[in-house]
Amino acid sequence: MAALEKVSSNKVYEGELIKYKFKSEALGGLDANFNLFLPSNKSGVKVPVLVYLAGLTCTEDTGAQKGGYLGVAASQNIAILFPDTSPRGAGVPGEDDDWDFGTGAGFYLDATRPEYSKHYNMATHITVELPQVIEAAGIPIDFQRQSIFGHSMGGHGALTLYLSSKTKQYRSASAFAPISNPTKCPWGEKAFKGYLAGGIAEGKRYDATELISKSTDPVHILIDYGTGDNFYKQGQLLPESFLKAARDAGYDEFQVRVRSQDAYDHSYYFISTFASDHIHFHANFLKA
Amino acid sequence: MAALEKVSSNKVYEGELIKYKFKSEALGGLDANFNLFLPSNKSGVKVPVLVYLAGLTCTEDTGAQKGGYLGVAASQNIAILFPDTSPRGAGVPGEDDDWDFGTGAGFYLDATRPEYSKHYNMATHITVELPQVIEAAGIPIDFQRQSIFGHSMGGHGALTLYLSSKTKQYRSASAFAPISNPTKCPWGEKAFKGYLAGGIAEGKRYDATELISKSTDPVHILIDYGTGDNFYKQGQLLPESFLKAARDAGYDEFQVRVRSQDAYDHSYYFISTFASDHIHFHANFLKA
Repeated sequence: MAALEKVSSNKVYEGELIKYKFKSEALGGLDANFNLFLPSNKSGVKVPVLVYLAGLTCTEDTGAQKGGYLGVAASQNIAILFPDTSPRGAGVPGEDDDWDFGTGAGFYLDATRPEYSKHYNMATHITVELPQVIEAAGIPIDFQRQSIFGHSMGGHGALTLYLSSKTKQYRSASAFAPISNPTKCPWGEKAFKGYLAGGIAEGKRYDATELISKSTDPVHILIDYGTGDNFYKQGQLLPESFLKAARDAGYDEFQVRVRSQDAYDHSYYFISTFASDHIHFHANFLKA
Repeated sequence: MAALEKVSSNKVYEGELIKYKFKSEALGGLDANFNLFLPSNKSGVKVPVLVYLAGLTCTEDTGAQKGGYLGVAASQNIAILFPDTSPRGAGVPGEDDDWDFGTGAGFYLDATRPEYSKHYNMATHITVELPQVIEAAGIPIDFQRQSIFGHSMGGHGALTLYLSSKTKQYRSASAFAPISNPTKCPWGEKAFKGYLAGGIAEGKRYDATELISKSTDPVHILIDYGTGDNFYKQGQLLPESFLKAARDAGYDEFQVRVRSQDAYDHSYYFISTFASDHIHFHANFLKA
């Protein structure tokens, strides 16, 4: 098990935001960074954790700096884990050519195309490796109480890792402007063709709309998107497809809530406006 | 009067953050950017405004993105004006050599050394020009109700523009980790020697500790700094000097409050923790 190295630490809302680095097996031995917010927690009891997945071009810092999550998380005594959005420095030819594929754009899947399969395994990194290395380091987080949320590509990641977990790893999922039906949008098609040997057909198992349409388990999902979001208008997000599939599968508005927010865009200004709502949503389940 | 050009707009907390650009006379005809947060304000009455001055290397975006101010300002129905930290592209030889002088480091003064005096006039830009161009554009802000706050170099700017205003332009001032006695610290000495023909002696009129020691008017000042702040430890901030000068001048803790925050550092994580306090502090005076 790789040891964690503390890169930096900032006191915030009486708690601490710590940046760690370690050699990631899941990412082919590359150094991986993540940020972890720990509330001050004087109880002595391990705290529940919310995993935040950021969007295209972002890093482990984006949500911590711009999301407006930490004050609410502190007040709820919840930790937040901020992973990076892709491996860094894999050296695959072309991985730095585009902003929507490769570096900064790992799409939270495990790649099966040979060029990418050694390093681009963000799904395993987030669901298996990070909990293991954090627990092994003795950090007082209760991984029996995890939920997950994210933005855009990270909203896709949150919904798909939640819906595809055979172990019910996460208690609830939420997303800001998620890529909700990636087999049907340009970003998703490019990612699946690039990372997956089976292309878009294989990508169906990383498509939230496909997953919810086949789901029969109880779910707790909240989605917000803005009607002023250019990526929404361009058909990259398709939240209506997800909503329709959820309703067709029998989920009501208490299980799957999709909110259209008038005139909000794709930015962190939109996210920060509804940040408190999302953390309170998850707190219901993390503290249940 | 230069016309404002809208560069971008983001809906946030039911209000709007707008980035504007205009040809700035104060900055020697260069393009200047600023951000303006306008709360949704359904009252029809002009809103009061809080001016936020950012620190070294920052821009008009830094406070808007990382400060955590907008939600509280929205709830208090207060606008926030985010100017840039220096002129951009003045072309003075050497202005881009250092991160703590020149571009991104205007120190909120009016330069008197000939190389800098055409462009580096951030004091006039903020106190005179921005209110004029914003009023001329018909934006519903009540500049009779202004307060000012800032971080680090911007904390220096907030305190000195507040204390030196002969017209009592601002109702209150607050600062996170301000450079409180710049004639006695390396950052301030470098800035004053560089920008001012009279060097450090001339810089006394831009030194908050010098200004408070000579002040006899009522003041409303709040300062927070962290004991884990490396720039504080290095003697760049000197908040104790400001506090002593204020007490020696007869100001009590209801007029000048300086809070030492245990283990907090110089980052926006520190700032965001106390952002709500600062906006509520100013709201007392802006709505009085």
